[in-house]
Amino acid sequence: MSPQCCIITIGDELLMGQTIDTNSAWLAKELNEIGIRVKHRVAVGDVAEDIKQSLHDALSWANLVILTGGLGPTSDDITKPLLCDFFGGKLIEHAAVKNHVIDFFQKRNRPILDSNVAQAMVPDVCEVLFNNVGTAPGMLFHYGETLVVSLPGVPFEMKFLFTERLREKLIQTWDVKPLLHRHIVTSGEGESFVAERLRDFELQLPKGIKLAYLPDLSLVKLRLSAEAHLANELDYAQRLLSKYVAPIMVYAGDQKPEEALKDLMVKHGLRLALAESCTGGHIAARITSVPGASTYFNGGYVPYSVDAKEHVVGVSGNSLQQYTAVSEVVAHELAVQTRSAFGSDYALSVTGYLEKGDHANEVWIGIAGPNNGFESKKITVPYDREKNTILVVNMAFTLLYNVVKLGLRK
Amino acid sequence: MSPQCCIITIGDELLMGQTIDTNSAWLAKELNEIGIRVKHRVAVGDVAEDIKQSLHDALSWANLVILTGGLGPTSDDITKPLLCDFFGGKLIEHAAVKNHVIDFFQKRNRPILDSNVAQAMVPDVCEVLFNNVGTAPGMLFHYGETLVVSLPGVPFEMKFLFTERLREKLIQTWDVKPLLHRHIVTSGEGESFVAERLRDFELQLPKGIKLAYLPDLSLVKLRLSAEAHLANELDYAQRLLSKYVAPIMVYAGDQKPEEALKDLMVKHGLRLALAESCTGGHIAARITSVPGASTYFNGGYVPYSVDAKEHVVGVSGNSLQQYTAVSEVVAHELAVQTRSAFGSDYALSVTGYLEKGDHANEVWIGIAGPNNGFESKKITVPYDREKNTILVVNMAFTLLYNVVKLGLRK
Repeated sequence: MSPQCCIITIGDELLMGQTIDTNSAWLAKELNEIGIRVKHRVAVGDVAEDIKQSLHDALSWANLVILTGGLGPTSDDITKPLLCDFFGGKLIEHAAVKNHVIDFFQKRNRPILDSNVAQAMVPDVCEVLFNNVGTAPGMLFHYGETLVVSLPGVPFEMKFLFTERLREKLIQTWDVKPLLHRHIVTSGEGESFVAERLRDFELQLPKGIKLAYLPDLSLVKLRLSAEAHLANELDYAQRLLSKYVAPIMVYAGDQKPEEALKDLMVKHGLRLALAESCTGGHIAARITSVPGASTYFNGGYVPYSVDAKEHVVGVSGNSLQQYTAVSEVVAHELAVQTRSAFGSDYALSVTGYLEKGDHANEVWIGIAGPNNGFESKKITVPYDREKNTILVVNMAFTLLYNVVKLGLRK
Repeated sequence: MSPQCCIITIGDELLMGQTIDTNSAWLAKELNEIGIRVKHRVAVGDVAEDIKQSLHDALSWANLVILTGGLGPTSDDITKPLLCDFFGGKLIEHAAVKNHVIDFFQKRNRPILDSNVAQAMVPDVCEVLFNNVGTAPGMLFHYGETLVVSLPGVPFEMKFLFTERLREKLIQTWDVKPLLHRHIVTSGEGESFVAERLRDFELQLPKGIKLAYLPDLSLVKLRLSAEAHLANELDYAQRLLSKYVAPIMVYAGDQKPEEALKDLMVKHGLRLALAESCTGGHIAARITSVPGASTYFNGGYVPYSVDAKEHVVGVSGNSLQQYTAVSEVVAHELAVQTRSAFGSDYALSVTGYLEKGDHANEVWIGIAGPNNGFESKKITVPYDREKNTILVVNMAFTLLYNVVKLGLRK
């Protein structure tokens, strides 16, 4: 039985919907990777009683409790005294933390407030997890056989403390083994149709291997999971799975589409440019979120207005008038002009309507490639603005991935 | 005492970190708006025992339990039979839901699978919340005085069912009153410094009004909250707060920076264009995420490569060579050229290094405005790529907001 973890995130803002909790997803992924199962994730407000209650509940079954948040310098943070009280200790000044806090502010030429210095007070019953990248230290408590860890809520501080101070300790404490995963990303069929395709496959799955469907707007990612000793069976299952989904498979691996595209294009020394109208920068943003994007991405236009399409990108006024801005002709001219202006091997264009109005919810994706190559796809988008944007961006990535892959085969 | 809610989100993907839970943040915000306090949010896997346990725990204190997820057509979804069992009912075919499911697929010219038709099976002990926008119906159960609601995990289906089928029912059940909030967005000072500034203010806060700090990379949003009968006191507190934070206040209201900027520019008939290099489309993406962005946003360049800066935007080769791409001179030329090419009133440029390398982590923001106006700001970014991107985008929005506001006063 692998150790079971409860993650407790603390903060009124989580319960008022002001903040989306990305910390616990990150933690859950990291813990899963080292074979610790997250059974519950709980979010509670900055209310001592509620924090205490959820800690109490978790201690009845968990081997590991990780609390995040509630450690900042402002007055709505109350976790530290509560933990001190819960574990029967008293707050003492931690010399190394105090020096670090003072140093932290001096290096930034900023005055030190009492509330900052107070961050050096820690319960005398905890092990301090030294925080090099911020001022709130992490704290590790023992409750019988259970470990209770308190980490700050600031994501990069929490990540630093987990990675540098906690991860190895957890692996050693329980001698845990990582869970292995294998992924295949498909496009073009909804979850239930992929499931239908995989009915026989699921019957053949060896015991201990689990298949999950992770749908994400035009994509369905398939994940096979098993414990480490089943690595060979897992590889076999992935090969078998790739045969079952061959017509809709885009690529194998746990990458985002923009990461897979980057690897493919960089590997073959190909460069890319964009002209995205209705997606308004979302494709460029996804591309440039991947470190090293400049190794294949030249840049692009966001020709949001009709004027910009004509006078900045150079689409002909005639085409705009005769076919309107949302047409295959304009998608074609956008892609061709962009490829030429940015001197790239491929150029992707998107033009359409993502929101309901006096028009069809139609989007054209165009891809200009070497040798006057051009591919296009028309999509009728069924959702709201936000969801349609993600749908079109995902479809643009998978279409481009397939076109580049096919181009390389020629 | 206002009714207390527990949100239970179901799905292995939430505990393995594959999916970030945005549903419960949305639900929490909506529930708070109508005066229902979310005390706990729990995430559990697709494991019947764990779902049952968390439902059981919640029923010991909650007046309302909302479950989301676990209702899809694939085999890893198990909530419905579990609820049926828990509430002592049996699954029966719901005629209206069945007709709707069949109609839903026929309209899309897609074949209907058994797993789709099975979505029309509902427990005979629930009230069906009819789902017009998807195939999984919502379900409402009574457990003594407590309401238990099961909603699908697909965000726009969940949102539809809450808004159209549930919200009014909840208001009527408990005769709840909405909580009121007032917000002020500040920029330029960290959370602890703002708190220091507000020490006296906090001492003057009338009973029943709560102040919260919501920091978000270069921004600190301040939120005042109170029950509806304290509306006047809340308005007074907001006016007082705005005096305390005058030097660092950007705007009042619960808007995102891109929403506040849009309102300001649209109100005064001003238009905007962008040239974003290192932020690579993130500013454009934030701008175009706001419905109606085309009323003030002409578009922009993403001149990611040095070549694109010179040959697409028209920055002089000399400037690039003499000052490098990351310089005030290049930020200036980018902004001026962009303003001219897109025919906008203002143009914002960003050029810099967001990731550690052989260079300083320096970013230049430039703003070209009417009458050859130009403002610039140099930032040294301290974090990782992802966080630095958000930091720079936020700073660009607040700087632009302040420049436009100041320009209007002249």
